[in-house]
Amino acid sequence: MTFAQMLESRRSIRNYKDKLVSLEIIKDMIKQSALSPSASNEQPWKFIIVNDKKMLKKISDESKKNILARIAGNPDDPTKGYEGMLQNESFNVFYNAPCLVIILGPSGLKNLYVDCALAASYFMMAATSRGLGTCWVNLGSQINDPKMIEELGIPDNCQIIAPIILGYPAKIPPVPRRKDPQILKIIR
Amino acid sequence: MTFAQMLESRRSIRNYKDKLVSLEIIKDMIKQSALSPSASNEQPWKFIIVNDKKMLKKISDESKKNILARIAGNPDDPTKGYEGMLQNESFNVFYNAPCLVIILGPSGLKNLYVDCALAASYFMMAATSRGLGTCWVNLGSQINDPKMIEELGIPDNCQIIAPIILGYPAKIPPVPRRKDPQILKIIR
Repeated sequence: MTFAQMLESRRSIRNYKDKLVSLEIIKDMIKQSALSPSASNEQPWKFIIVNDKKMLKKISDESKKNILARIAGNPDDPTKGYEGMLQNESFNVFYNAPCLVIILGPSGLKNLYVDCALAASYFMMAATSRGLGTCWVNLGSQINDPKMIEELGIPDNCQIIAPIILGYPAKIPPVPRRKDPQILKIIR
Repeated sequence: MTFAQMLESRRSIRNYKDKLVSLEIIKDMIKQSALSPSASNEQPWKFIIVNDKKMLKKISDESKKNILARIAGNPDDPTKGYEGMLQNESFNVFYNAPCLVIILGPSGLKNLYVDCALAASYFMMAATSRGLGTCWVNLGSQINDPKMIEELGIPDNCQIIAPIILGYPAKIPPVPRRKDPQILKIIR
């Protein structure tokens, strides 16, 4: 697979086969993810692997509850458009994915979002290159329950940046419409 | 080149050959960059191409001046450690790169940093896959001069996220030390 083909075959996958991804593969992918550049070579990313559907369901329920409470308190919340979906009890924000990898790092670090997004991008491509699918699921990041935070091993000073589901795609959707990238100016 | 080899060969390049990158190649890379995922498929990224060393020098001088003023006003500024380097008049934050691609988008958009970082990651890999080098240079993003903002075609409502230099590497540095990625917890 050429790089160009790989870029075109990476899709956000929301439909997975009922097949676990081996820990060895996930760890190899995390190693590749950590080859990403970071501001001042800080490498602030940390990882949590959840390779258990029951735990994924628990995290989904916790996150849905907290986002719905947030929307109730602020009708201008940017996730307002997802309210109906989140109110559906059978909706799992992680779809039927067998695995979740959480990328997180120290809260308040100036370039944390950018650095973890770069690592996330490497991770998602590392998946594509292995025939695996991913989807970055922001709706799964709202974990407030102290017991769950402890169970997941999230340190006090850390915040979740990228919850990424992972698995073997049951169906690869077609490429969604892309706008032509807007080049505002060419100086030469 | 396999994907794994590509990940390992992407380095931040700070030393370039005196050779322009053709606009056609840059535009192809921007197209690949826009294949990146984005929150709610928003695709908020916009691009500016500066394929002119004189203009790069002007941007470098402007950004250095503004960062030094910021540091003078706040000794806790995170760029304080670069003060000596920035005070050196002959130091060009873009090194000797022949080209700069600026990724920017609407200020205040919730996921702007993450979305543009993902596009930046695609852009940097698109470069590596063509034997080109890049470096994300945050020190080159502090453009305050209204005339320069106009000259670059930066819209009023937009902010620069990723200024990325681009060119043919004169020298590819060795892989810098990587920490072993920290996996905080494995649940299975």
